[in-house]
Amino acid sequence: MNKVVAFVQGASRGIGLHFAKDLAKKPNAFVIASCRDPDNAVNLQALSNQVNNVDLLRIDVTNEDDIKHAAVYIKEKYNSKLDLLINIAGMLSPSGRGETSLREVSVQALEETFKVNTFGPLLVAKHFGQFLQNGNGGFGAKSESEKLKHSGVLVNMSAKVGSIGDNSLGGWYSYRLSKAALNMVTKNLSIELGRGRKKVICVSLHPGSVDTDLSRPYLKSIPTERLFSPEYSVSCLMNVIDNLNVHDTGKFFSWDGSELPY
Amino acid sequence: MNKVVAFVQGASRGIGLHFAKDLAKKPNAFVIASCRDPDNAVNLQALSNQVNNVDLLRIDVTNEDDIKHAAVYIKEKYNSKLDLLINIAGMLSPSGRGETSLREVSVQALEETFKVNTFGPLLVAKHFGQFLQNGNGGFGAKSESEKLKHSGVLVNMSAKVGSIGDNSLGGWYSYRLSKAALNMVTKNLSIELGRGRKKVICVSLHPGSVDTDLSRPYLKSIPTERLFSPEYSVSCLMNVIDNLNVHDTGKFFSWDGSELPY
Ligand SMILES: NC(=O)c1ccc[n+]([C@@H]2O[C@H](COP(=O)([O-])OP(=O)(O)OC[C@H]3O[C@@H](n4cnc5c(N)ncnc54)[C@H](OP(=O)(O)O)[C@@H]3O)[C@@H](O)[C@H]2O)c1
Ligand SMILES: NC(=O)c1ccc[n+]([C@@H]2O[C@H](COP(=O)([O-])OP(=O)(O)OC[C@H]3O[C@@H](n4cnc5c(N)ncnc54)[C@H](OP(=O)(O)O)[C@@H]3O)[C@@H](O)[C@H]2O)c1
Repeated sequence: MNKVVAFVQGASRGIGLHFAKDLAKKPNAFVIASCRDPDNAVNLQALSNQVNNVDLLRIDVTNEDDIKHAAVYIKEKYNSKLDLLINIAGMLSPSGRGETSLREVSVQALEETFKVNTFGPLLVAKHFGQFLQNGNGGFGAKSESEKLKHSGVLVNMSAKVGSIGDNSLGGWYSYRLSKAALNMVTKNLSIELGRGRKKVICVSLHPGSVDTDLSRPYLKSIPTERLFSPEYSVSCLMNVIDNLNVHDTGKFFSWDGSELPY
Repeated sequence: MNKVVAFVQGASRGIGLHFAKDLAKKPNAFVIASCRDPDNAVNLQALSNQVNNVDLLRIDVTNEDDIKHAAVYIKEKYNSKLDLLINIAGMLSPSGRGETSLREVSVQALEETFKVNTFGPLLVAKHFGQFLQNGNGGFGAKSESEKLKHSGVLVNMSAKVGSIGDNSLGGWYSYRLSKAALNMVTKNLSIELGRGRKKVICVSLHPGSVDTDLSRPYLKSIPTERLFSPEYSVSCLMNVIDNLNVHDTGKFFSWDGSELPY
């Protein structure tokens, strides 16, 4: 059985933690799970103590040096190879709530949010992109045709509210702007990492409305039948990832596999 | 004849300077033209000496205090009313060139570019949006129907390379990301400033490939028949603006009036 390597960036809590758990169940997978403070990420610690295929790394995505150190680690320990990278770390805004009107807009909040939601994933791709080009196509749809083969899959966890075309409510300036820009990151990466023989499939995904710390302030406004557990969201998203092929690169998909407008 | 008031933000050079010149030709228009350093904006100085309807203001869009001071000025001198606001200031990147690959991506360059291209126009809208809601609909298509009436027009000068859907070349990370996020700003503003009776039409515009300082490093790669003078670009864009109605709000148009995807 071919070994596959998955990197989950932002795995301490919520959706990221459940991606790490889900991926760790694959008997042929190594999972590298990063977060800002592994020593105090109790759930992630518990996971890595239970299984023997989860590696913990410290990355604060606002610190490029952390990302560089992680790249050296992957180079040495995983032979510069990744099959899957999922960029998950994200925040609504420094206050934990979206701006309801222009009056609440501040450059400081915009900058902090962009650092985590947009520039972070881009920096991770800058340093890990080559590893995905060295991957063996361990995730995504398998193809016999040389032309349709891919080496790696890169996922940026975006949000439907980052769709400009779908936006009918407004507000949430920091979050919406940063996720729209993240979708442009995905599109740019799909081009830069899609050239040549070693193609990386790059997509933005929307996980649905998921019960996590991030969504907590808004739980009351989400009808219960539309509120997913992180487990359910991750199982849907893994299904989307398993079916990705090179024609999907650069696109934005929802948890059910439907395509979202930019 | 009803007086109309237009604000041109970023009017020292290039497209912005020519918007100020074009608007100053309207006998019923007051033009407020802002730039970072009015004392040394020789072409704008010359214009304001030639005519008597151009008012110069100092705004560095990276400084919210400048924008607040300008808002106080508009309140006092123009009775808190604007009919048109054009956000024009923009940069490719601090180096003046787009990043050709991930290797060239730096958070510092991203942050500087976002400050000018994305957060700047958003801050201007934050402080001037109410003035546009007080406007008399002096720009854009006229309508007899109360429902279709608008009070003001807000233009964000975007760029076709900021379209995620249209992106087939990649690169230019700072510029592309910042303009994609600016298009989300436009969409959000169209919602927030489009509520109630006093509607502001908000659009993103692409000026074409225009011969300015910004495009200078790339002039050789643009076929001459597709390279516009700022005069020509502005005359096309004014035509687009003159035809805008409330149904166009939140959209992204090219110089020829065709709609661009987000
Ligand atoms: N929940 C939803 O309904 C929903 C909907 C659409 C999209 N999303 C997206 O899904 C992703 C995960 O969200 P979630 O709901 O699982 O949120 P969450 O439970 O609040 O988790 C956020 C994660 O981001 C990490 N993080 C924050 N800042 C970081 C930084 N500077 N460096 C590294 N990691 C950082 C957190 O790590 P610490 O533990 O160190 O703080 C945590 O692991 C986000 O990108 C979010 O935008 C969520
Ligand atoms: N030229 C093209 O082909 C093209 C194509 C697509 C979109 N655009 C967009 O059109 C707009 C105008 O570009 P252009 O070609 O006319 O460029 P330009 O000739 O280089 O002019 C740029 C303008 O932005 C101003 N500016 C820069 N930083 C500023 C800041 N911090 N605060 C206030 N003003 C600042 C400059 O003022 P100073 O004089 O003080 O530096 C100058 O007036 C930009 O948004 C650009 O992205 C241009």
